[in-house]
Amino acid sequence: MAVYTEVTDDELAALIADYGLGELLSYKGIAEGVENTNFMVHTTKGAYILTLYERRVDAADLPFFLGLLEHLHARGISCPQPVRNRAGDVLTAIAGRSAAVVTFLEGVWPRHPRESHCQAVGRALAELHLAGDGFALERPNALGLEGWHDLYERFASRADEIAPGLGTLIAHELAFLDRAWPKDLPSGVIHADLFPDNVFFIGDKLSGLIDFYFACNDAWAYDLAICLNAWCFEPDVSFSAAKARALLSGYQTLRPLTEAEQAAFPVLARGAALRFLLTRAYDWLHTDRNALVRPHDPKPYIRRLRFHQEVEVAADYGVEASS
Amino acid sequence: MAVYTEVTDDELAALIADYGLGELLSYKGIAEGVENTNFMVHTTKGAYILTLYERRVDAADLPFFLGLLEHLHARGISCPQPVRNRAGDVLTAIAGRSAAVVTFLEGVWPRHPRESHCQAVGRALAELHLAGDGFALERPNALGLEGWHDLYERFASRADEIAPGLGTLIAHELAFLDRAWPKDLPSGVIHADLFPDNVFFIGDKLSGLIDFYFACNDAWAYDLAICLNAWCFEPDVSFSAAKARALLSGYQTLRPLTEAEQAAFPVLARGAALRFLLTRAYDWLHTDRNALVRPHDPKPYIRRLRFHQEVEVAADYGVEASS
Repeated sequence: MAVYTEVTDDELAALIADYGLGELLSYKGIAEGVENTNFMVHTTKGAYILTLYERRVDAADLPFFLGLLEHLHARGISCPQPVRNRAGDVLTAIAGRSAAVVTFLEGVWPRHPRESHCQAVGRALAELHLAGDGFALERPNALGLEGWHDLYERFASRADEIAPGLGTLIAHELAFLDRAWPKDLPSGVIHADLFPDNVFFIGDKLSGLIDFYFACNDAWAYDLAICLNAWCFEPDVSFSAAKARALLSGYQTLRPLTEAEQAAFPVLARGAALRFLLTRAYDWLHTDRNALVRPHDPKPYIRRLRFHQEVEVAADYGVEASS
Repeated sequence: MAVYTEVTDDELAALIADYGLGELLSYKGIAEGVENTNFMVHTTKGAYILTLYERRVDAADLPFFLGLLEHLHARGISCPQPVRNRAGDVLTAIAGRSAAVVTFLEGVWPRHPRESHCQAVGRALAELHLAGDGFALERPNALGLEGWHDLYERFASRADEIAPGLGTLIAHELAFLDRAWPKDLPSGVIHADLFPDNVFFIGDKLSGLIDFYFACNDAWAYDLAICLNAWCFEPDVSFSAAKARALLSGYQTLRPLTEAEQAAFPVLARGAALRFLLTRAYDWLHTDRNALVRPHDPKPYIRRLRFHQEVEVAADYGVEASS
């Protein structure tokens, strides 16, 4: 939770004028978001989010992220819609940062997801995958198998500071995934980070998806495997078969998994667990103690990974044979 | 900037229902506010601020603060209005904290105050003083002369860590104020912390005042002296006579200072500078390096205090003889 960069009232008022959004009424730094600085902005035209892109985001990726939001919004996905300024651009600059203004999306992310949430998220993920079709830009997944190797090399010597034996666990898992990682699965745009804090609900109804800053092109079923890790474990890291069934059935109401996807699902789940174990472990070891943002504990992802290692077939997750 | 206490969606939805505020649409932790945790809340009825009172606020003072907001709002002051729940209470509890819901006030605080802002703040302060008349509750100023002595004793031995000679400066100043502090000035409710971040503007127009958590009963002119310190020095800590004239003339359009207040003004300005020097110095020495909130630098208040020590008569600040 952090505001990394302050914005003055005068420079924001000028920016709002340049967007034709009426008069600036208020803005508040939001204590959410690890990667970027976000302000909630009220103007006489409505509510918006101003995002300042900080160090973690590669500016070269911004046209992909913002273009994707426009593409998805135009296809009926409820997600923030980038606003274009008078010059017709979605990307601007303020306070020395690249920045964008998007429409504010009402909704609350579920702190304690229930089966009904998982069902709705599964369905929304399938909608997202199908709506991504035809998006002109491409972005390889920087946090795919190759990226995992690179990331691990940057902290391998210190991995066991987090948990004894973690280095061996990761090295063996990478070797396994090098052999077992599936190729040629149905692919397209994926969200790649659809955790509960990126999915909004109003009451029981899913109201929208946010935070597309890890979106990329990769296997759709891998995105679903990320959601399995993010949504279907209890706070004590025990697996919830009921939530997994809800997630997977929600997804398959719109997009049934192919046989190849079903067969690959346990491996995809292992890869997804490893991906978050790696980034959290790296951040755990490299976050300054004085940082504004406290890193996530990587250890729950060790337990997820060990769970997936015991799973043999997709049916164990509640994947039904597609009709 | 901090959210000290997290609130779950389920407990907030229950609270909003108890306030009859319609359905919860969204809530975001706000990265402002040093003392308390604040969430911006949207419901189908409008926008609100939920405040969770953290350790620095004495729960026994909350009826004064919230009652004062109701009193001032009823008298036409633009300030947050506490919302009463179904039981008729303004004070509730959530996530283990005392809490209140107030109406959201649109407006932007000026990062670079100009003379026009100072004029408007002076006028708003006089309105506030006059509107406080008749408020039933009383709260002594815990950060008055006696409180300054107490606070200084808690870090006297370490004062020179901040600046060489600071201990002597403060001790001499306290001794001076013990002799010179005025008594029997016109008194009533004062805001006591009306810094720029607590005064909202929309365009050039003052839209409201917030953060009454230091409000108390004390001399009105002392409140004006606090504003002089807060609004009428440039970033390089040089005094702006033009801004001081604007502040004081704005105030006196509604409430001309008495002769006794004018005579006391230089001493009040010294006391006000010392008050913020003391709290900032204490926080500077006692804030954990890992704290979510970085303490304010106390040194600009050393310079303010030294400036005021050279002032002999109120006319030097631009106080006009009252008509």
